[in-house]
Amino acid sequence: MSSKNVSSGVVRVGIVGARGYTGEELVRLLARHPHVRLTYLAATVEEPVPIEEVFPKFKGVVRLDCEKFDVARSAARCDLLFLALPHTASMDYVPQLVKKGCRIVDLSADYRLKDPKVYAAWYHKPHRDTGNLKRFVYGLPELQREKIAKASWVANPGCYPTAAVLAIAPALVAGLAAREGIIIDAKSGVTGAGKKVAPGYLYPEVNENFKGYKFNAHQHSPEIEQELSRLADKEVRVVFCPHLLPVNRGILETVYVPLAKAAAPEKILEVYRRFYKEEPFVRVRPLGVLPELKDVVGTNFCDIGIAADPARKILVIVSVIDNLLKGASGQAVQNMNLMLGVDEKTSLL
Amino acid sequence: MSSKNVSSGVVRVGIVGARGYTGEELVRLLARHPHVRLTYLAATVEEPVPIEEVFPKFKGVVRLDCEKFDVARSAARCDLLFLALPHTASMDYVPQLVKKGCRIVDLSADYRLKDPKVYAAWYHKPHRDTGNLKRFVYGLPELQREKIAKASWVANPGCYPTAAVLAIAPALVAGLAAREGIIIDAKSGVTGAGKKVAPGYLYPEVNENFKGYKFNAHQHSPEIEQELSRLADKEVRVVFCPHLLPVNRGILETVYVPLAKAAAPEKILEVYRRFYKEEPFVRVRPLGVLPELKDVVGTNFCDIGIAADPARKILVIVSVIDNLLKGASGQAVQNMNLMLGVDEKTSLL
Amino acid sequence: MSSKNVSSGVVRVGIVGARGYTGEELVRLLARHPHVRLTYLAATVEEPVPIEEVFPKFKGVVRLDCEKFDVARSAARCDLLFLALPHTASMDYVPQLVKKGCRIVDLSADYRLKDPKVYAAWYHKPHRDTGNLKRFVYGLPELQREKIAKASWVANPGCYPTAAVLAIAPALVAGLAAREGIIIDAKSGVTGAGKKVAPGYLYPEVNENFKGYKFNAHQHSPEIEQELSRLADKEVRVVFCPHLLPVNRGILETVYVPLAKAAAPEKILEVYRRFYKEEPFVRVRPLGVLPELKDVVGTNFCDIGIAADPARKILVIVSVIDNLLKGASGQAVQNMNLMLGVDEKTSLL
Amino acid sequence: MSSKNVSSGVVRVGIVGARGYTGEELVRLLARHPHVRLTYLAATVEEPVPIEEVFPKFKGVVRLDCEKFDVARSAARCDLLFLALPHTASMDYVPQLVKKGCRIVDLSADYRLKDPKVYAAWYHKPHRDTGNLKRFVYGLPELQREKIAKASWVANPGCYPTAAVLAIAPALVAGLAAREGIIIDAKSGVTGAGKKVAPGYLYPEVNENFKGYKFNAHQHSPEIEQELSRLADKEVRVVFCPHLLPVNRGILETVYVPLAKAAAPEKILEVYRRFYKEEPFVRVRPLGVLPELKDVVGTNFCDIGIAADPARKILVIVSVIDNLLKGASGQAVQNMNLMLGVDEKTSLL
Repeated sequence: MSSKNVSSGVVRVGIVGARGYTGEELVRLLARHPHVRLTYLAATVEEPVPIEEVFPKFKGVVRLDCEKFDVARSAARCDLLFLALPHTASMDYVPQLVKKGCRIVDLSADYRLKDPKVYAAWYHKPHRDTGNLKRFVYGLPELQREKIAKASWVANPGCYPTAAVLAIAPALVAGLAAREGIIIDAKSGVTGAGKKVAPGYLYPEVNENFKGYKFNAHQHSPEIEQELSRLADKEVRVVFCPHLLPVNRGILETVYVPLAKAAAPEKILEVYRRFYKEEPFVRVRPLGVLPELKDVVGTNFCDIGIAADPARKILVIVSVIDNLLKGASGQAVQNMNLMLGVDEKTSLL
Repeated sequence: MSSKNVSSGVVRVGIVGARGYTGEELVRLLARHPHVRLTYLAATVEEPVPIEEVFPKFKGVVRLDCEKFDVARSAARCDLLFLALPHTASMDYVPQLVKKGCRIVDLSADYRLKDPKVYAAWYHKPHRDTGNLKRFVYGLPELQREKIAKASWVANPGCYPTAAVLAIAPALVAGLAAREGIIIDAKSGVTGAGKKVAPGYLYPEVNENFKGYKFNAHQHSPEIEQELSRLADKEVRVVFCPHLLPVNRGILETVYVPLAKAAAPEKILEVYRRFYKEEPFVRVRPLGVLPELKDVVGTNFCDIGIAADPARKILVIVSVIDNLLKGASGQAVQNMNLMLGVDEKTSLL
Repeated sequence: MSSKNVSSGVVRVGIVGARGYTGEELVRLLARHPHVRLTYLAATVEEPVPIEEVFPKFKGVVRLDCEKFDVARSAARCDLLFLALPHTASMDYVPQLVKKGCRIVDLSADYRLKDPKVYAAWYHKPHRDTGNLKRFVYGLPELQREKIAKASWVANPGCYPTAAVLAIAPALVAGLAAREGIIIDAKSGVTGAGKKVAPGYLYPEVNENFKGYKFNAHQHSPEIEQELSRLADKEVRVVFCPHLLPVNRGILETVYVPLAKAAAPEKILEVYRRFYKEEPFVRVRPLGVLPELKDVVGTNFCDIGIAADPARKILVIVSVIDNLLKGASGQAVQNMNLMLGVDEKTSLL
Repeated sequence: MSSKNVSSGVVRVGIVGARGYTGEELVRLLARHPHVRLTYLAATVEEPVPIEEVFPKFKGVVRLDCEKFDVARSAARCDLLFLALPHTASMDYVPQLVKKGCRIVDLSADYRLKDPKVYAAWYHKPHRDTGNLKRFVYGLPELQREKIAKASWVANPGCYPTAAVLAIAPALVAGLAAREGIIIDAKSGVTGAGKKVAPGYLYPEVNENFKGYKFNAHQHSPEIEQELSRLADKEVRVVFCPHLLPVNRGILETVYVPLAKAAAPEKILEVYRRFYKEEPFVRVRPLGVLPELKDVVGTNFCDIGIAADPARKILVIVSVIDNLLKGASGQAVQNMNLMLGVDEKTSLL
């Protein structure tokens, strides 16, 4: 179907939640995409407003109104819809959109966790569309490429889980990682919180400051554990401690993995290199070279560095992504490319 | 009365609006002041809350509750009150406080503009306490020291006007400055806007950004013009264009003054040096040396540099202050020191 | 010749000075350009080094070595060369390159100023290649498009002059601007200084700081005056005061222009709108709407806003650009596109 | 002797290395200290230069020249000297100063590590003054107060070790912490690197960036292990991974300590509270409340928060300090206060 879509002409795509940071990036990426046409933008507005008034940077680049979300209208105007809505909001619209045959890439958390009890425990609301949960594929291309290519409904991964799972997967699959005691010390730029107007995100509160938050209580914990457990085919638990960095964009995660068995750093590096050999958006650094935020900000890459110290029996991995690209909108477009059967890198380099 | 206050023991002072950025600085400065005792803190809280919970940095430094503002209670507990309230709020409480004999340093704009019509035009509300307008002295110590020393009620100047008036006053008084065509290109750190929770002050909107706002429409324009006109004894008009700097603290103003008559830069510098010779908190730089924000942030100084270029007939002056200190709370304490008859620099070095 | 180049196949281009900030942007823009092939990168290295080692972000994107600059080699390998060298360095290589028929976009200041005496006065070195000065076209496409399209040698404008000339040109050409008393209060991000390793550019010296520098003494002053004088066909003088902003990228200039004759703001706006009507990279805002850095950072646009206040007889204009794009590498590619006869916007949207 | 010093008049103190960030803070703290007089400032200058020219912020605050370091002169002019020199430089001057009876607080690493072999291994130079190693007390007041009070020579701790040892000590002493598998994920502001003029510390390289460096290879590792091993009376090993934060000041360390035995979080908190009960500069937060950089920047406090999760068997501790105060100059003054027998908090609140 996807190749049909493309061969039979341009695919019509829309964005719900176009005024947020992820919405803004989606507009930018889709406006220059050669195989799709941006036909619909929705946000919490009363009257339609040109997107160039919302984001003056799009003047002369994108000519489209941003309108109040209307499910029927969006389905009529789009073959595929990106939902860049807050958590617990997507599941109110997905059932209708699925019925109308509209394909979806959902950037919220609503269809990531497969167990509705886990969802309810972490998002403090019961899941209202459990019926569609299984239809959604978890959209991490490096681990689910084939399923995504056949999917009509994709749950786009969280930003922290993307960097964490890509950092840990090779060691876990190779049996190098212990399944207990994995520690993820994560640091994220402020756009990771979305455009939330709260005192804690005011400039003078974040600038020249740094802090941890929601230690072992962040809603991305169960998502990381779900994906690692699936990979290991056994329960994997992590200690997940996120921090707020005074930068606009980017996530760096320092991951501490107790080694299940002794392994020379060179061997471990080789495991990582082989695991990501064919991946267009994962780059493994030479031994001891640590990736930095600026290597990936503005790109869809996830860069990974290994700092193994066999004497200490703890493998240290650093992974970096741009939270708005590989951690959200870039990965969403990567998923769409796979769903449409076009080159996975289209519009992303 | 002031010396009596001090000689007869410690002066009891309070802060209304203790949770804002200026309130926080007042707490810090007054807590270490040897001649006053901080006895009252008020803010928009329902139940009293220890100030160390509002600002964890004060733990072990200040032990006082922050409570809901009550006029009678504040007057009973304090000899002198700092009002760090939003504009148009102070004038609701001042009449009662004046009646109860409580001395006041008002950090809002309510008693700065002497003409109620001008106030109404710029603050979009009629003045509700015109009777007390004349009782308040405009608290710029460098120009009004003697009046402040005798005052019980002081209107603390705005941040932009402090830097602007100190930059222009010497040239104006010496007859060097034309009274037309003065341009003030001002740049302020974000705390200048207070702790306003609005989308434009979110970290990702300010960080890596810079913008002008309210050109010729900022409420500090009439305040600058009032003080300069008073000094010149003739009407002075300015073009005032403020900008928002991605820093927490500090104001830098680049002031362009058409010269009324030719003058060698060395002569102009001499005029400035003499004008501020005895001032403890104004420092004039050597010719061509421009002061920077970091020279004054964290201090109560106003630093001034002269970049005169006689060929161009325009005198360029740079002045810098910390908007929360010389531009607000530091100057408020300086005013209080004068009112109490103690060393003007107490707690400010 | 240019269309021949393109029609007969891909144009081979090279960059001298590939390790600086402008070099980095050139690599990015040229690597994705459909009509050129990046065939040569030079920098101050002893041994060739893969560009992905210099800039890890280019791993998997650009595969090319960065080598020691060799004039003959560069001319043999490239049809067109970008010189991203320090001022006073380009003029040592240009004569040979011109002789070998290599087309050039020079990002240094060496061929911008048409009067060698002015050059010597501001760059503190005599010009060593006055013979080629006239061959170079000043590459501001909005004012010189036709000449650039026929040129083989282009002097790419400075960052400050680009924003200044675009801000002032319409008013000047329309006879609205006085030719005396124009003030340019400019603020630039730190990459404007290049990758200079000097104490003043260390992070803690710039961060949370702001300062003016080189008031009326910056080498871009004569460049601005040359271009404005050429436009007005009479000598135009400006007061030019640059400041250093704590951001990576972007220039905002607040320009104060005394009006030569009374004019309603709406009329002035209309003059600007008409002047830039067909321009792909200049956007004029509605009256009173001021452009911000973030509207243009990462783009090749110059955005302009008008804040005329007829009562004050001074027209205030705000212009913003990304100093590394419209202020350097983006404009260089725009110039190359014109020289090659391809769509001016190629690789720039 | 110390009380004698003070009772018999003011103590004369000097600073060697007055132009660095720690030197600047020492000048500020000592200038306002009531029991000492700043009599000597040295730095790498040829001719004496007023300190107000080096740091314009000290104009009107400190009047003293900064001169070329001369050992004899410094000893003649000072009772106590702060050495704010680069590592491996202090040990060249200490022998002479000790002979002349000059008391010393050394802010370099030269006298912290008690084993010269360990020193040579981590600082890549043999120790040239092993004879005085034992004379120096490791100046962490919370653990060595009595020794410091009797000392004439104090080795001021490193910034990272201060935050790390204070975070781990209570759990270690109480037998709660395992001595294997302790992980310290540390994040430091840029002044932690001193005023090093290197490409990696340029503003655009640090701003909007974040990176790890010297994982398990930082010279503060052996210092942390030495102090923890001394406390535990057994060898303690740590995994120490520092990162560079885009802020001027402040260190936050997230410490992961495997629990040696099960313990309720409330019990652990109680252990910490009791351990630091009498400490003037360590503040323990309520359970689950994590301290932030801004709580301590500009102060001499170390704030500690506990995020124990018994289910995961890993105790997570967050500690924050200002790297230039509790991490360097503030602690140095705290040590001097103890050495002089005056109130430990003098000049530090």
